[in-house]
Amino acid sequence: MRYSQLLIPTVKEVPADAEVPSHRLMIRAGFVRKVASGTYTYLPLGWRVLRKIMQIVREEMDAAGAQEICVPILQPIELWQQTGREADYGPTMCKFTDRHGRVNALAPTAEEVFTTLVAAEVSSYKQLPINLYQINTKFRDEFRPRFGVLRSREFIMKDAYSFDVDAAGLDVAYGKMHDAYCRVFDRCGIDYVIVWAESGEMGGSGSQQFTVPCDSGEDTIVMTEDGQYAANLEKAPVDPPAAAATPAADVPEMEEVHTPDVGSIEAVCAFLGTQPAEMIKTLIYTAGADQTVAVLIRGDHDANEEKITQAVGGKHVELADEATIRRVSGAEVGFAGPMGMAEQADVGLLLVDPSVAAMAVGVTGANKTDHHTRNVVPGRDFPLEGQNVKVVDVRQAVEGDTYGGKRLVFKRGIEVGQIFKLGTKYSVSLGATFLDESDHEKPCLTGSYGIGINRIFASAIELGHDDGGCILPINIAPFEVEILPLNSDSEAVVGEAERIYRELAEAGVDVLIDDREVRPGVKFKDADLIGIPLRIVVGDRGLKEGKVEIKRRTDAKPALVAAGEAVERAAAIVEQLKQGS
Amino acid sequence: MRYSQLLIPTVKEVPADAEVPSHRLMIRAGFVRKVASGTYTYLPLGWRVLRKIMQIVREEMDAAGAQEICVPILQPIELWQQTGREADYGPTMCKFTDRHGRVNALAPTAEEVFTTLVAAEVSSYKQLPINLYQINTKFRDEFRPRFGVLRSREFIMKDAYSFDVDAAGLDVAYGKMHDAYCRVFDRCGIDYVIVWAESGEMGGSGSQQFTVPCDSGEDTIVMTEDGQYAANLEKAPVDPPAAAATPAADVPEMEEVHTPDVGSIEAVCAFLGTQPAEMIKTLIYTAGADQTVAVLIRGDHDANEEKITQAVGGKHVELADEATIRRVSGAEVGFAGPMGMAEQADVGLLLVDPSVAAMAVGVTGANKTDHHTRNVVPGRDFPLEGQNVKVVDVRQAVEGDTYGGKRLVFKRGIEVGQIFKLGTKYSVSLGATFLDESDHEKPCLTGSYGIGINRIFASAIELGHDDGGCILPINIAPFEVEILPLNSDSEAVVGEAERIYRELAEAGVDVLIDDREVRPGVKFKDADLIGIPLRIVVGDRGLKEGKVEIKRRTDAKPALVAAGEAVERAAAIVEQLKQGS
Repeated sequence: MRYSQLLIPTVKEVPADAEVPSHRLMIRAGFVRKVASGTYTYLPLGWRVLRKIMQIVREEMDAAGAQEICVPILQPIELWQQTGREADYGPTMCKFTDRHGRVNALAPTAEEVFTTLVAAEVSSYKQLPINLYQINTKFRDEFRPRFGVLRSREFIMKDAYSFDVDAAGLDVAYGKMHDAYCRVFDRCGIDYVIVWAESGEMGGSGSQQFTVPCDSGEDTIVMTEDGQYAANLEKAPVDPPAAAATPAADVPEMEEVHTPDVGSIEAVCAFLGTQPAEMIKTLIYTAGADQTVAVLIRGDHDANEEKITQAVGGKHVELADEATIRRVSGAEVGFAGPMGMAEQADVGLLLVDPSVAAMAVGVTGANKTDHHTRNVVPGRDFPLEGQNVKVVDVRQAVEGDTYGGKRLVFKRGIEVGQIFKLGTKYSVSLGATFLDESDHEKPCLTGSYGIGINRIFASAIELGHDDGGCILPINIAPFEVEILPLNSDSEAVVGEAERIYRELAEAGVDVLIDDREVRPGVKFKDADLIGIPLRIVVGDRGLKEGKVEIKRRTDAKPALVAAGEAVERAAAIVEQLKQGS
Repeated sequence: MRYSQLLIPTVKEVPADAEVPSHRLMIRAGFVRKVASGTYTYLPLGWRVLRKIMQIVREEMDAAGAQEICVPILQPIELWQQTGREADYGPTMCKFTDRHGRVNALAPTAEEVFTTLVAAEVSSYKQLPINLYQINTKFRDEFRPRFGVLRSREFIMKDAYSFDVDAAGLDVAYGKMHDAYCRVFDRCGIDYVIVWAESGEMGGSGSQQFTVPCDSGEDTIVMTEDGQYAANLEKAPVDPPAAAATPAADVPEMEEVHTPDVGSIEAVCAFLGTQPAEMIKTLIYTAGADQTVAVLIRGDHDANEEKITQAVGGKHVELADEATIRRVSGAEVGFAGPMGMAEQADVGLLLVDPSVAAMAVGVTGANKTDHHTRNVVPGRDFPLEGQNVKVVDVRQAVEGDTYGGKRLVFKRGIEVGQIFKLGTKYSVSLGATFLDESDHEKPCLTGSYGIGINRIFASAIELGHDDGGCILPINIAPFEVEILPLNSDSEAVVGEAERIYRELAEAGVDVLIDDREVRPGVKFKDADLIGIPLRIVVGDRGLKEGKVEIKRRTDAKPALVAAGEAVERAAAIVEQLKQGS
C-alpha cells in the first residue's frame, strides 16, 4: 500500500497520561488515538496489527478444533444473576437498562451465554466434546483506565469455552488450548511465561496465565530462579521455614502489656522494642455467607486472600467488618490475638501460616482494647492442630522465600491470556447437562480460555522498541517491508522503488511504499517509529552504483545490495524472519 | 469441513414470533439462536455467512480507496450533544452511565467519532480527500425488535465516512461509494433497487438507499412503472393534479355548520354528506425550536413529514401540541381551518399541497369548536400565494399517483445500505476544518455510507428459499459444495466421498462433508435446509455404476456423473455460479 493514501498521523509529543512505552509509541506511531478515558480508535496501521493478531488466533483455534461463533454483546443480567457473577463483578460490569427496563450487561466475558447455548443445544454425550469460541469486543468499567490499551474499558478478546463429558475430557480440551496458546504467542513473536494461577472469581479447579515479562506489567510473576516454575502472586506457594525453632520450654508465661495509642505493627514494635517478624497478626475474615475465620500471619508478611479462599474450600473471603471483629476479639480493631480463638463458637476455623507455627515465641494482640500480649508460644498458648485448626500457607510470597528449595524471583508482567478448568460451576447453575451412555443426566465439564488481542499488540511494543520507535515482530507488523524512495523528483529513484514495490507485492510480501513528497529525514524517522521489520532505501547516490540499501529494523547499519537483487533478498529475509518467529 | 464437527442444530419447529421466512429459516437451519429480544447468537454456519459478507464489503471498500479503522462502541454522549443528535435519536439510543457518572452512547452509528477524528488529524487540503470506514457492532434500542436479525437491537454495520474539500469532491466520493455498493450487493448475489431518499435525521443534501424488494420488507418503495425512478415513501414525489378545476365563480359564500360530536374525517363526511376528497385537512406543525407551520392536505391524503421538513428548509417538524393548536386555530383540536391562517402572526408559513390548491371547493374546520365551514374556495377564501404561503408537495404518494406522467407502483423492501451526502453539517458542529490552498479555513464536505451486514444475510434468504429451506448465493453460502455420503457403513461410499472432499478442498473449493452416521433422509433434509449451492451425493447404488449425483440447490433433479469426473464438474459449476453473481 501507499503511505500517502493511509492515515498515519505520527507525532512527537505524547499526552502526559502515557506512562508506559507501548502507550507512548502507539500514539507517536499513529496506531491509536484516545477517544475518551479507556477507549481508543485504532487507525489504519494499528488496525492492521490487530487484524493480523486476530487472524493468527483464529487459525490456531480452528486448527485446535474450536468452532467460531458470535454471541451478543448485550447479555441479559438474569444470566449473570443465575451464576452469582453480577455480584462478583460489581461496579466493573458495564450495564445498560433498555427502554423496557430490562438490564443488560455489556459482555465482560461470556461463560453464561455460551453455557446457556450449550444447555439448549446439547443433550447427549454424542454431541460432546465441543469447543466454541468468538473474537469480540468486551467491556470493563475500570475505575482508573490506564497504560493505553493495556487497561482499557473496551477491548477485543478471544474467548473459547469447552464442554466435555468428564474431567479427563476437560484435561484434553485444556491441554489443546494450552498448546494452541503457545503457538499463538510464538507466531505473534512475543516472549511469555506460563504462570500457575488461582481461578479467582471465575471459579474452577485450575488455571494458567500466559504472561509477558516486562517492567510495565501490572501483574507480578513469582518464579523459581531456574525458571522451572512460575505462578502469579495470588497463587505463588512458599516453602515453610526450614526448621521449626525448638519449642521454647523456658519461655515465661504470657504477659499482658498496656499499649495505648499504638495502631500499626511498626508502632507496636517501636513501643515494645520488638521486630515485625516477632509479631503474630490475627486477621478476622468472613468466608462465604456466614463463616468467620481467624488467620495468623507473621507481622512482616501479608495475607494472601486467594490462598485463604482455597484453604476454606473456594468460598469468597473478605476482611470482616468492625462489628464482627469486636464480637470475636472482644476488643477494638487492632487488638485481636490467637488465644482462645479456636475455642470460640463464633470462629469456624483458625488458619495458621507455617511461618507463625514455626515461631518460638511472639507478640500478639491481647483481645483487649489497647493491650498486647507477649511471650506467646504457638502450640502452647494457641493450638496448632485440632478439628478447626489448619496450619497452611496463607501468605504472600516475598523476596527471600523459596519454593521446592529454589529461591523465588519476582518479575512484572502483562497477562495476555488465561486458561481455566471451570469444572461444573457454570454447567450446574445454568443447566448444561447431557445424557450419558446409560441415560444418566450429568453436568458438562467446562473450560474457559481467553486471549487479550489488544494486549498482545501492546506487549509486542513493550518487548520491542528503542529510542527511535517500535520494533514489531514480522507476523503482526502492519507491513513486512517498507520501501523508502528518498527523492521523489528523481525518475530513476521513483521508478526503481516502484518496481521493487510491485514485484515484492506480486511475490506475496506485505509491502508499504513511502511515496510522500517529504524530506528523507522525515521518512527515516517515521519508518523507525512505525517499526516495519525490513526497510529498503532507494536513493540517487546508491542507484548510481546500481545499489539499494536493505536494513532490518534491528540492524545498526544497512547492507548495500544490487538493485536487481533487492526483491529476492528482501523476500528471503522476510521468510527468514517468519521462520524465526 | 466436517458436519460432525460443527454445531448445526437444525430444527423443525420455530418460535411463534418468527413471522418472516428469513427469521424462520435462520433458526431452522441452525444459523442463529435468539439470546433475548432483538439479540442473536450466530452459530458456526451463520457466522461463516456473515464473515463472507464482511470480507466482500472489506474488499470493495479497500478497492474504492477507503481505509479501514476501528472506533470504540462506547462514545461520549457530549459528542452527540454537540451535533444535537442525542435528541434526534431519543429513546432508540442505548446509553451506559459509567461509575464516574459519565454517559456513553453505545454507537448507533459513528458520524460524530469519525468527524472528531478528522477534526484532530486533518488540517490541510493536502490531506484530503479521505475516506475512513469500519465494520463494527452497532446498537439501537428498538421499541419492538422483530423479523429476526432484520430489526434487532445489536447488529453489524459497515460505516464509511468521506471528507472532501468541496462539493465536487463529495460528489466523486459519493459516486465511488455508490459504485462500490453495487459491486458489494452484486457479489453477495442479492437483487436490489436504488431508491432516492431524504436524509432524515442524518441531515444533508442527498441520499440513496439500496433496497431489496421483497414482501417481508418494512420499507415501502415507490417506483415508476417503467422502473426508471424509485424513491422511498418519505421522498416519493407526485405530479400535481393534471389540471386545476376551473375556479368556481358560482360557489356561494362560505357557510359555517354546527358539527357536534364528530371527530374523524369519516364522521364529518357522514354528517355533512360529503367525501374525504372534498375535505381540506389543516394540520398544525412546529418546525425547529419556534416556528409554527399550517399544512393543508386533502382529506383522503396523508401528510409527509419528510416533505414538510424539506419545505421548511430541513428543520425537524412534528405535529404541534394541543395548546399550540388551540392558540392558532382558536378551537379545540380537530376544527382548524385555513381561513385567516396566513395572516396570523403566530403562523410563520402556510404550506398548501397542490391537490388542495387544485380543488374547486372544499369543506374545512371552522376555527371554532364543533363547527366546520363549507363552500371554501382555495384562492378566494385563503391565499395560494404570498410571502408566507407555499404551494408545495407535502403529502404521501398513493396508488393511482403518477410522477413524470408515469404511474407509480408500490413495493415492500428491505434496506440493506444507504449513502448520504451530509455536506458540512457535522464538520461545522464538530470543527472538522482544513486550510485551503490560500490558507483559508473551511469545513470539510462529508458523506456517510452504511451497509447492514446482517440484513444482507436475511435478504438473501428472503429472496432465496423454498419449502425445503434456504437457497443461498454462492459467494455468501457457508460452503460452496456439500458432499453427502449416503451410507457410512460402506467403505466404498465413504472412501469415494472422502476422496472427492479432499480433492475439492485442495482445488480451493469451500466444501462440507456430511460425515454423520444418520439416515440419508436426514442428510437430504438438512442439506436442503442449510442451502449449500451445490450438492454431491455418493451412494452405493450409483457407485456400482461408477456414478455420483451432482445437483444445484435450485435443480429439480440431480445429474449422474462419473465419480472420477465429479471434482472437475463440481469445481466448474462453482466457477460458473460465481461468474453469474
